[in-house]
Amino acid sequence: MKIKSEWDLIAKISSRIKSKGITLPSDSVISIGDDCFAYIISENRYGLISVDMSVEDVHFKKQWATPEQIGYKAMAGNISDISAMGGTPRFTFVSIGLPENISEEYVLSIYDGMLDALNKSGTILAGGDTVSSDKICISISIYGETDNLPVGRKGASPGEFIYVTGNIGASKAGLSILLSGKKELIDKYPFLIQKHLMPDIRSSATAGIMKEFSPTAMIDISDGLLSDLRHICVSGNTGFELNIDSLPVEEELKSFCLESDISYSDMALESGEEYELLFTSEKDIEQVNFKNIPVTKIGKIIDRNYYITQNGKKEPVQIKGYDHFK
Amino acid sequence: MKIKSEWDLIAKISSRIKSKGITLPSDSVISIGDDCFAYIISENRYGLISVDMSVEDVHFKKQWATPEQIGYKAMAGNISDISAMGGTPRFTFVSIGLPENISEEYVLSIYDGMLDALNKSGTILAGGDTVSSDKICISISIYGETDNLPVGRKGASPGEFIYVTGNIGASKAGLSILLSGKKELIDKYPFLIQKHLMPDIRSSATAGIMKEFSPTAMIDISDGLLSDLRHICVSGNTGFELNIDSLPVEEELKSFCLESDISYSDMALESGEEYELLFTSEKDIEQVNFKNIPVTKIGKIIDRNYYITQNGKKEPVQIKGYDHFK
Repeated sequence: MKIKSEWDLIAKISSRIKSKGITLPSDSVISIGDDCFAYIISENRYGLISVDMSVEDVHFKKQWATPEQIGYKAMAGNISDISAMGGTPRFTFVSIGLPENISEEYVLSIYDGMLDALNKSGTILAGGDTVSSDKICISISIYGETDNLPVGRKGASPGEFIYVTGNIGASKAGLSILLSGKKELIDKYPFLIQKHLMPDIRSSATAGIMKEFSPTAMIDISDGLLSDLRHICVSGNTGFELNIDSLPVEEELKSFCLESDISYSDMALESGEEYELLFTSEKDIEQVNFKNIPVTKIGKIIDRNYYITQNGKKEPVQIKGYDHFK
Repeated sequence: MKIKSEWDLIAKISSRIKSKGITLPSDSVISIGDDCFAYIISENRYGLISVDMSVEDVHFKKQWATPEQIGYKAMAGNISDISAMGGTPRFTFVSIGLPENISEEYVLSIYDGMLDALNKSGTILAGGDTVSSDKICISISIYGETDNLPVGRKGASPGEFIYVTGNIGASKAGLSILLSGKKELIDKYPFLIQKHLMPDIRSSATAGIMKEFSPTAMIDISDGLLSDLRHICVSGNTGFELNIDSLPVEEELKSFCLESDISYSDMALESGEEYELLFTSEKDIEQVNFKNIPVTKIGKIIDRNYYITQNGKKEPVQIKGYDHFK
């Protein structure tokens, strides 16, 4: 039988584990399905571990991105997983599969990009593995810690507000420009291209978010705002109401969408690989900055069903998401 | 420039890290180049992290091994890295790249094999990532802990003795039989095939080794006995004298080598992916068993140079090893 979906496969693996009578140890806090695995180190100290794999021609293409950008983005995604639990990234480990004919300079440039992302978040490259493979395959594991109870996807309650860091929509727009191959568009919209190839790292906002908002649920936007918000709502058995007019969207995205006759709100709702932090909180704050990273209120958690409001009009919403096996 | 060797690449990455002024934090104990990264959790408690990647047609072939065997072996290698530091494996994380046309049953069987290895060592599958790729790519990260100072490759001193668990040589012999494709040989030497496809897991011997031997240096045999012993000697700036006659070699290996007119000692010295533990200790013990796993004295650490002795004759030895980029 063919694999139905990534989520279906993960569910089946989880049930295999349960069927063998294996249970998680008593010091684990959060497990399969969240951004990180979390376990208790000691009182008020938690360990966080996350892993991600990026494959050439699936997650990145050599003709679109420099090796520095490829390395940077792969690492940024992992750092983001630790941030999304409210943690501080500490050590990272890189296993890399490399084609035999690849140049040493190219490989070292991938590492330069990874080290750039690591430096921005104060994380250390602490180990790894190098093997040969047909295509470049970058597998990153990251270890982080937090003094607060790790913030999982589950925990949002009706009446709470929904927040997002930075800006959204640009990554998908940047990708569509790169896919079009149109040089004039690539030159005209550098912000969109940059956001797709080298997304910002939000780890420096985590401490502020944890202190000011005490988030009840958090996730980083990797599948898309709607899709990741659904993860939070499914985990917490709630619904949401998103305010389209308050979504933090850059002017450049609006210009591009106007020129291309596409809805910027659809772009913002569906754009994946943003690596912005999406969280819920009881606190009601319109907008705040932490270390120059804006945090914007974009909606609220409700009992059930998913709605978006635009120009005062409230409508139910359908959710699409990226699946590796569909 | 082409990549010269795996070790050269790792050395260049390490020097990039240093050139950026990045230093390891004060709580790290052992880093790049050893079986695991090790850091201090608290007094007398250390965290160990290791990562490994296995790629289809590089590390395993679908026509030689069942999916269970592929999963089992990939996991066994990682568990072995934690054992080689004297640690107890705790949590593991699997990132897997899968071709689009692969069947769900095949993938779940890979996980069955991994779970089998995990169960044998009391380790938990705690997370992972599933992505699409051209060929199967399994990247495993493992977290373990130890109450003792982690045992690295460095630390052996002249006058100490060299020990190895289990038996050696069978993995390479099993591989050569599989490479030959000869059905009659495959049926005749099941132990050799088994050792190559599903190497024993020695994690249950670690506690005994730590208690009885207080190892000064330890490594798991992944490149080959000579090659891995050289890692210990280069790290500790010593030499070795290996006694060929005392190498723990199974009768089936001797029979196969006799039939094939190859030297069983060469096979034992060069066979990689054995995942036996190789360590040095001040203690002088000929042979001891821990939970049915034999530990055998095979030589001693000397000031400099590498020698093997056979039938009382001592000769210098040349060392070959597997390199992914050669």
